[in-house]
Amino acid sequence: MGPTSTQGRFGRARPNLRLPGPVEIPAEVSRAAGRPMINHLGPEFAALLARVTAGLRHVFGTDADVLGFPSSGSGVMEAAIVNCFSPGDRVIAVVNGVFSERWAAMADAFGLRVTRLDVEWGRAVDPDAVARALGQLPDAAGVLVTHNETSTGVTCDLEAIARAARGESDDVLVMVDAISSLGSIDVQMDAWDLDVVLGASQKGLMAPPGLGLAALSERGWEAQRRCIQPRFYWDFARMRDRNATGSTPWTPPTPIYYALEASLELIMAEGLEAIYARHAAVAGSVRSGVEALGLDLYAEPEAASSTVTAVRVPDGVTPADLLDRLHRYEDVVVAGGLGPLSDEVFRIGHLGAVQPRDVRHCLAAIKRQLAGLGLRSRLEAGGALAFANP
Amino acid sequence: MGPTSTQGRFGRARPNLRLPGPVEIPAEVSRAAGRPMINHLGPEFAALLARVTAGLRHVFGTDADVLGFPSSGSGVMEAAIVNCFSPGDRVIAVVNGVFSERWAAMADAFGLRVTRLDVEWGRAVDPDAVARALGQLPDAAGVLVTHNETSTGVTCDLEAIARAARGESDDVLVMVDAISSLGSIDVQMDAWDLDVVLGASQKGLMAPPGLGLAALSERGWEAQRRCIQPRFYWDFARMRDRNATGSTPWTPPTPIYYALEASLELIMAEGLEAIYARHAAVAGSVRSGVEALGLDLYAEPEAASSTVTAVRVPDGVTPADLLDRLHRYEDVVVAGGLGPLSDEVFRIGHLGAVQPRDVRHCLAAIKRQLAGLGLRSRLEAGGALAFANP
Repeated sequence: MGPTSTQGRFGRARPNLRLPGPVEIPAEVSRAAGRPMINHLGPEFAALLARVTAGLRHVFGTDADVLGFPSSGSGVMEAAIVNCFSPGDRVIAVVNGVFSERWAAMADAFGLRVTRLDVEWGRAVDPDAVARALGQLPDAAGVLVTHNETSTGVTCDLEAIARAARGESDDVLVMVDAISSLGSIDVQMDAWDLDVVLGASQKGLMAPPGLGLAALSERGWEAQRRCIQPRFYWDFARMRDRNATGSTPWTPPTPIYYALEASLELIMAEGLEAIYARHAAVAGSVRSGVEALGLDLYAEPEAASSTVTAVRVPDGVTPADLLDRLHRYEDVVVAGGLGPLSDEVFRIGHLGAVQPRDVRHCLAAIKRQLAGLGLRSRLEAGGALAFANP
Repeated sequence: MGPTSTQGRFGRARPNLRLPGPVEIPAEVSRAAGRPMINHLGPEFAALLARVTAGLRHVFGTDADVLGFPSSGSGVMEAAIVNCFSPGDRVIAVVNGVFSERWAAMADAFGLRVTRLDVEWGRAVDPDAVARALGQLPDAAGVLVTHNETSTGVTCDLEAIARAARGESDDVLVMVDAISSLGSIDVQMDAWDLDVVLGASQKGLMAPPGLGLAALSERGWEAQRRCIQPRFYWDFARMRDRNATGSTPWTPPTPIYYALEASLELIMAEGLEAIYARHAAVAGSVRSGVEALGLDLYAEPEAASSTVTAVRVPDGVTPADLLDRLHRYEDVVVAGGLGPLSDEVFRIGHLGAVQPRDVRHCLAAIKRQLAGLGLRSRLEAGGALAFANP
């Protein structure tokens, strides 16, 4: 069912939040998040923690513990480094965007010897290149892989990369930033033999931002025990041991646990396979809609993400102007480009509870506002809006 | 006005949450926290961040930047250590409870030479003892002080301790965990010449848990620039520099900023002096009420906190039983003892939006449930409930 006029300005009660996270929070999840506080050291929280952890295991595709830290996603990216690698350890960092750059910079800050495997931004990551890098660096203790680069809208073939890495080494840790893929794009931690998988609450899990997630394989826990990097707040073992008693070492963001409990119920009801298919279909319709507008996609098609699409800003348009007009006149919120892409792209997020009508509405708004910015003739040359009907 | 029968079981719509944090969130703050997500990299968030920061400056008593990190309070305790002290630096840690113990342990984990100034738990901290310790250790780079020890219900005379420390050294950093005092007990960062002041969202600031706060003096920033401790997520300079552009380096917990904006309005409307007086009066009535029940206070009166009261568990009662009965039969949630005090005390929180009726209701419930646990005669010997009327 499409939006009706009772839903407010432009047919919507709320802005059409087309960010690649934090995502729009479903009404039932938002209601859950507003429940009264409880004693985070009491039995109610212990039961909540157990229910949420069970649901997260399902999304991660693992039997391992899934640990939650009060932090952003970047917090657990740092946690993974300081738990599993000692100063001087060699790691290979696959770098293909702003977030993978950040992770490599973190590893460097903590004294690791970082060998970058640079991949042209917007292009697919070649699993063979990962295998070759590992073959040349047999002392590498880990490979850092960003499953879904939110800055460029590129998803890598994580299963193939993990298989390629494991083919070179039984011991290397395959460490994955799955922050913007978990719950939207298939992640199979156990089946793909991943060692550290990182997530966050505000992407496909549809909860407010503020909880970072981390799961470790047995290989990961062994590395954690050996690691001599100083750590305290981020200590995975401290979190796991307290979780085992039904609580957390640090005051938990209880509203996010409430929210996750509700959103995990939605996820279970729809089913992960159906969710992944919905994301893929919506993403496909975004890409064809963008092209129908005569705009250029940043990522090559075979690497395109199901959660976010980076679109090249047409000549003569300032990204800030476009974002501002979309927000002001259309109640549509898209994201700007990050880092070196800030003048080059804008990004349309399509993850979480996204439906086809959300991206249709967004693309129509983009068409109108680009026209308002003086691009009418080019847009008309691009033809009418066309959408696959997922 | 007291509770009425329309408010639900035992006269209340919600449980009477008498934890020393997270506190019950006022209705208008909870509503604010539920507002839709926005682009955390856009102008709306920049304006929100500016408003919240201005309000926090007022509560901290400072003109300095107040930085917010997605984390619990313990997160910013670690942040303070890794930003301002290098491995091998000497610090004096005043230790008088579970949270000050934790801070000393963190400093130790990051390679500092930690000299403990142990103070008997429950007793006042002597400012002269801090001065003597500093006099004996002229190489000390910092003093770690917990303003309000939530585990024991002890508040130190922070102004006097800071003056004593400064009397010994112009350079020493006076670093203060004010997590459970800010917004409830007077903290004057600039007037008292404090160098690092730490807070969190879920105590006197009456917001959900998940945002740690830190403010630095000029002396603190100088130490931060000199410090060679590895850091990335916690880097104060990275946060300050991004804040200056209206955003944050890590995805912020936007709902907590919404909540803080609303709670800071409540705080401004009541006025900090009135809030501190209300907390002191309510705390006084808790202490006299506890004594009227024939129970023993853990902290000595001159050191007693305005935000939390630790009560010795009477002989023959298991704290878990008492907490469970209070929760189950009275809808009252008090906190257990922490660490070595877990069998010895329970704790009544009285901070945030607390009103005299909340603690009267709590004490009456404790009386009933202790009677139910077979302590009737001793309680009767203790006389009727008596309350100061704040």
